Amino acid sequence: MVTIEQLTNFCTSAMSSVGAEQQDAATVADALVMADSWGVFTHGSKLLHDYLLRIQAGGISVKNKPIVDRDGPAWANVQANSVMGHVAGKFAMEVAIEKARQTGVAYVGVQNTNHYGAAGYYAWLAAREGLIGLSMANDIPSVAAPGSRKAVTGSNPLSYGIPCRKDQDPILLDMAISTVAGGKVYAAIQRGESIPDNWIVGPDGLPTTNGSLYPAEASLQPMSGPKGYGIALLVETLSGVLTGAAMTSQVGSWIWGEKSKPTNHGAAFIAIDIQSIMPAGEFERRIGHLVDEIHNSPTAEGVDSVMLPGEREWNHRHQALEKGIELPADVMAKLKNVAELIDEQPVWMTD
Amino acid sequence: MVTIEQLTNFCTSAMSSVGAEQQDAATVADALVMADSWGVFTHGSKLLHDYLLRIQAGGISVKNKPIVDRDGPAWANVQANSVMGHVAGKFAMEVAIEKARQTGVAYVGVQNTNHYGAAGYYAWLAAREGLIGLSMANDIPSVAAPGSRKAVTGSNPLSYGIPCRKDQDPILLDMAISTVAGGKVYAAIQRGESIPDNWIVGPDGLPTTNGSLYPAEASLQPMSGPKGYGIALLVETLSGVLTGAAMTSQVGSWIWGEKSKPTNHGAAFIAIDIQSIMPAGEFERRIGHLVDEIHNSPTAEGVDSVMLPGEREWNHRHQALEKGIELPADVMAKLKNVAELIDEQPVWMTD
Repeated sequence: MVTIEQLTNFCTSAMSSVGAEQQDAATVADALVMADSWGVFTHGSKLLHDYLLRIQAGGISVKNKPIVDRDGPAWANVQANSVMGHVAGKFAMEVAIEKARQTGVAYVGVQNTNHYGAAGYYAWLAAREGLIGLSMANDIPSVAAPGSRKAVTGSNPLSYGIPCRKDQDPILLDMAISTVAGGKVYAAIQRGESIPDNWIVGPDGLPTTNGSLYPAEASLQPMSGPKGYGIALLVETLSGVLTGAAMTSQVGSWIWGEKSKPTNHGAAFIAIDIQSIMPAGEFERRIGHLVDEIHNSPTAEGVDSVMLPGEREWNHRHQALEKGIELPADVMAKLKNVAELIDEQPVWMTD
Repeated sequence: MVTIEQLTNFCTSAMSSVGAEQQDAATVADALVMADSWGVFTHGSKLLHDYLLRIQAGGISVKNKPIVDRDGPAWANVQANSVMGHVAGKFAMEVAIEKARQTGVAYVGVQNTNHYGAAGYYAWLAAREGLIGLSMANDIPSVAAPGSRKAVTGSNPLSYGIPCRKDQDPILLDMAISTVAGGKVYAAIQRGESIPDNWIVGPDGLPTTNGSLYPAEASLQPMSGPKGYGIALLVETLSGVLTGAAMTSQVGSWIWGEKSKPTNHGAAFIAIDIQSIMPAGEFERRIGHLVDEIHNSPTAEGVDSVMLPGEREWNHRHQALEKGIELPADVMAKLKNVAELIDEQPVWMTD
């Protein structure tokens, strides 16, 4: 068991040890530990070790700063200069929030950024400030299009955050556009199970229940076929095409690619300032009504209550704030790699 | 077989006969016939008869005009005053386009509107002008949430249009957030077939393959469960909560509800002005590259080519422009009802 503070300090310290400035180190740590506290361990501190290797190899810069390359009243293009995706993402969402407060809504595209972890972190940054936030990014192809033999788009995450009544957590959706994440396929293989026929396509481009083909000879399927594929292309357009970032097959793999080379990921952020559009109290009353209606809707057999997007994750975070986080073994193993790399092992890691 | 011009003239004439001004009649006709020409007959002129009945009963006004109720640099709220959803939708998207050209991006919410037909029509209005357009609307609950026993959200359509190279049609996605439309369930019942277990939930809130339970004792399932449900709530928030329109169970049914009462649907439109953000030629080159990459990707067994969202519909429209539209029997029957109602039967209807 580790407290949020302990884990944050460790991640901050690790980022500092490879040369990140205090503020950037704190941003990365906050984003990673937020994901862990939500129970989204696939996008939390587990990733830190690979980020550090890429920083040491030069593919990610801890010296550069993201800058606004060009902008207008309700938009900006951020040149991320290969900094950590989390640093560029936070910077860009803050620009979007500032502009949206002036104009009502703003779109900020980012080029030359890196893998930015949990898309939901940036949507939450906006929701925390009382704005509706959207966050999305492109990635290397891993998902087939309907009728394609191979992967055509990335899993292109899309997230939004909506602030609710003061006594409610924000509604927070964070989804990839594939039916399931690749990790679910691996887990099924490990359990020796076959998988549903809408998870992957095999080497012939047709659905298969043989998970062991993935990833060498198989691609993920888009959720609901044409719909997930369609959303992937919208994300690709707003985060890749319109930003000047690499697109689809041109994006570098942040894990398997040459670690000294920038990946040139793209990302996009949209902020909508509720208070510009509707008195905050009226919005709160209206969204509160919607939330209550959903919470009070009759449930299916065996279900306690109908939940909002993100509700499970907020419950996990409240637990984490109170009692700390029980890190899964795979995360702990990766953090031990970090401890070796920076030659600093905290007490909680050996308990 | 009817030409686009003939069908447009008939729809315009029908709208005029119930008192719509020429321009509004032309807007409705254009939107309906566009859907028919795409082959999306569920959202085309088939709907006209029910719209006319609602106009005659007073639930839809052909005398009122939509107005900008309040606005800022990059947003507006449109009070639709219960006019036809198509008239309010076109008006709102035009406001969004105008504002986006000044600021880069704009959001326009609409309250007190009606069923607006094919969401894609409004996204296309923006794409036609060289902007990225998004269009969405709420509706009466018809789709369950994960774990709910009954419908919680509408099928809340979401559409986007992206302009491409001059020799290419815009990328155009138009989707409901349910796994399938209710019409697909009816079609399976008629064929006496059972349905996949991810289409509907039965009266206990659990998945069922018994389509005959729908709609009296069943609700549609959201596509990919939490993902479709999550997108439905984003659409509800932008088109319902933030506009002042009716929300979920408060929305009136435009078909089954009291025809003299406004339905108070909500809708939302977003326009992103590409030319404000990136030289148009550069965007064209980049999106053209993406389109070519997709068209050239290897196909699954039995598939001719990987298609873009909307490509099938544009092919249908090119055929329709050249040879006319072969209207399905159910559409023709509805148009004959219109002919009786306005006491004007065109020659093509009796051929």
